Amino acid sequence: MSAAEVEPTVPWMATVLTLFPESFPGPLGISLAGKALEEGRWNLEVLDIRDFARDKHRTVDDTPYGGGAGMVMRSDVVDDAIEASSASPGPLLYLSPRGRLLTQERVRELASGPGARLLCGRYEGVDQRVLDARGVEEISVGDYILSGGEMAALVLMDAVVRLLPGVMGNDDSAGEESFERGLLEYPHYTRPPEWRGQTVPEVLLSGHHEKIRRWRLAEAEAITRKRRPDLWVAYRAERKQGAD
Amino acid sequence: MSAAEVEPTVPWMATVLTLFPESFPGPLGISLAGKALEEGRWNLEVLDIRDFARDKHRTVDDTPYGGGAGMVMRSDVVDDAIEASSASPGPLLYLSPRGRLLTQERVRELASGPGARLLCGRYEGVDQRVLDARGVEEISVGDYILSGGEMAALVLMDAVVRLLPGVMGNDDSAGEESFERGLLEYPHYTRPPEWRGQTVPEVLLSGHHEKIRRWRLAEAEAITRKRRPDLWVAYRAERKQGAD
Repeated sequence: MSAAEVEPTVPWMATVLTLFPESFPGPLGISLAGKALEEGRWNLEVLDIRDFARDKHRTVDDTPYGGGAGMVMRSDVVDDAIEASSASPGPLLYLSPRGRLLTQERVRELASGPGARLLCGRYEGVDQRVLDARGVEEISVGDYILSGGEMAALVLMDAVVRLLPGVMGNDDSAGEESFERGLLEYPHYTRPPEWRGQTVPEVLLSGHHEKIRRWRLAEAEAITRKRRPDLWVAYRAERKQGAD
Repeated sequence: MSAAEVEPTVPWMATVLTLFPESFPGPLGISLAGKALEEGRWNLEVLDIRDFARDKHRTVDDTPYGGGAGMVMRSDVVDDAIEASSASPGPLLYLSPRGRLLTQERVRELASGPGARLLCGRYEGVDQRVLDARGVEEISVGDYILSGGEMAALVLMDAVVRLLPGVMGNDDSAGEESFERGLLEYPHYTRPPEWRGQTVPEVLLSGHHEKIRRWRLAEAEAITRKRRPDLWVAYRAERKQGAD
């Protein structure tokens, strides 16, 4: 059963733990995700980690043991923030370049669950002891460094929210796209039929559904093979297994 | 020469082409990137693709040839928007899950250049003919589907901006992190020295810089091997090559 077929009794719930609460909802407050937020199809709660500081300077970080550049977020402060989010549903995720890479499969799993708690690091990251003690799942949105976990949390929520029931105008759209079959998507064309001397591939004007399907599959395979040899190898292996 | 060592004569320039201009600067208007924007260390120009529509309904998209869900952005409208950005510096990038994956290496290249033009798709994407005609570079921020290219453009700009001269308080911080050596980062610890019965690894309190360096390298290698076999294989291959 896909996420789109499940009508939840309570809306999907995102709980964000951050030092920059003003980042949220940010771009999720407009367009598709913003409309869905207004309509109550998902909820967003933001906890300011600084509210859990223990001194009058509201200190949340300190220099790293062993030396090095940057600051590290304190285990006690972060742990209190996590504790305050413990009534919120879903797994506790820490957005970090050290995490496992986010995939569309994990996005679908999260969308079919009740929600997620998203811990956003800043500076050099969070003291390892609180990550260990809380059994945090570390997730990375890609092999590059961001200024903090906030942007990664926005990405994750955007990917999840578009899969929630009723969010996409046309529920078909969420399903048939890149990665759903392990392939990059085929090219798209729309009006005008001729643009600067370039026409549309004839097969797309043929009305022959099976030919169109085969052409699109062949295009998707060709671009995956060219641009993403890693996905291509996995796709071929899966097809071979399916054929055995 | 690293990006941090180059003092540009003009600030790095981001030019965004989007149907949702209100997404920008969004989270890039606060914290590190926002301060850098205010200080003129980078510039942001946003073009509304809808301004280039040719009819009174301001139509920017149409149904896909060959059928299927969703809408496709028209080549003529998008091309006019691209033309209007042609005086802006840097490569023309199209944020799309069909693109090559963004890496920290590509981020560094972009940061050392004059800027980038970022085309954000919505719906099912952009007519392939304009992508072909303009020789667009397609870039993906990860193997998941977002509601549009806007969030991906924010991610890319955040990654680039933190590398620009003067943006990070401590320039060392930008260099010694994840992926800079092809490894995930080692764990961090800060005060208090004991938290809930968990102490800090003794070596970090030793003051012995070489031992600390070796411990951190071993930890970085161990976590990379466990969580990211793909990076581990590449790291090992590079070391072997270096040793030959």
